[in-house]
Amino acid sequence: MEVEKNEEKKIIVAVDESEESMYALSWCLHNIIVSQQISKSTTLVLLYVKPPPPPYSAFHVAGYLFGNDVIATLEEYSERLVDSVMSKAQAICMKSNRNIKVEKKVGSGDAKNVICGTVEKLGADMLVMGSHGYGFLKRALLGSVSHDCAKHVKCPMVVVKQPKNI
Amino acid sequence: MEVEKNEEKKIIVAVDESEESMYALSWCLHNIIVSQQISKSTTLVLLYVKPPPPPYSAFHVAGYLFGNDVIATLEEYSERLVDSVMSKAQAICMKSNRNIKVEKKVGSGDAKNVICGTVEKLGADMLVMGSHGYGFLKRALLGSVSHDCAKHVKCPMVVVKQPKNI
Repeated sequence: MEVEKNEEKKIIVAVDESEESMYALSWCLHNIIVSQQISKSTTLVLLYVKPPPPPYSAFHVAGYLFGNDVIATLEEYSERLVDSVMSKAQAICMKSNRNIKVEKKVGSGDAKNVICGTVEKLGADMLVMGSHGYGFLKRALLGSVSHDCAKHVKCPMVVVKQPKNI
Repeated sequence: MEVEKNEEKKIIVAVDESEESMYALSWCLHNIIVSQQISKSTTLVLLYVKPPPPPYSAFHVAGYLFGNDVIATLEEYSERLVDSVMSKAQAICMKSNRNIKVEKKVGSGDAKNVICGTVEKLGADMLVMGSHGYGFLKRALLGSVSHDCAKHVKCPMVVVKQPKNI
């Protein structure tokens, strides 16, 4: 039994609007990317998953059919959210002084499927994510994405829980 | 938001009789303990959890009451299993040439409770375990211990899945 020693590594960090996912990213930079040598040989992939666009029927709320203007506004809001999360994540990477290659990816759809699919497609060596992330509502409705991923993902996965006193 | 930079680290690796838990240990040694500096400041705690002793009623099988000699034999077998797993784990640590401090701990009881309790008691910085370990039968009956731990453990946790081609 040997653990493969691959020089070029790819680490995917699933980021979202939660503080916990930013903590997971920061934890990864300080505990996994621990040397300049590792920074040089590692690509950090920041992955954000947008929820799938709601079917039009979802916009029939209480008898109202939302017009295209409302849909356009929601889409714009969603784009801004992506930009905001990615900027925050990028700033954390910069601040860590790790001089690491960072790629940004935005997926859309079911978070578990997109994350596990991206891990497989990129042949990632590690997946890092917060324990509870991916939105309060979604979690309440669908359970924790990190637990789903832990079941299905093929590579080692780090589940990072943010300490309560931070 | 800052990630605490603690020089002295404690990593708990939950080991059992499964090949996957040995892979997780090996993965940890090669991917987390990546430098001599980290070796020096890290203690690796190998944690093995024995199932709780069965209540005597469990020995009334098909009308037979097992005698003390059978119980003693089972206990001896259990001790030998602990020794065998710990020796294998220790050998993997030695082989990795990481020159790391290794502590061995054996607990008894419900695996999730013992693992999460030990993490808390030792103030561990990281928990590493295989995805599916803790015995085929126990898993089939009770589900995966790693998923239970991911829900309850307070520190970052690495779930390592053994690739199929190894």
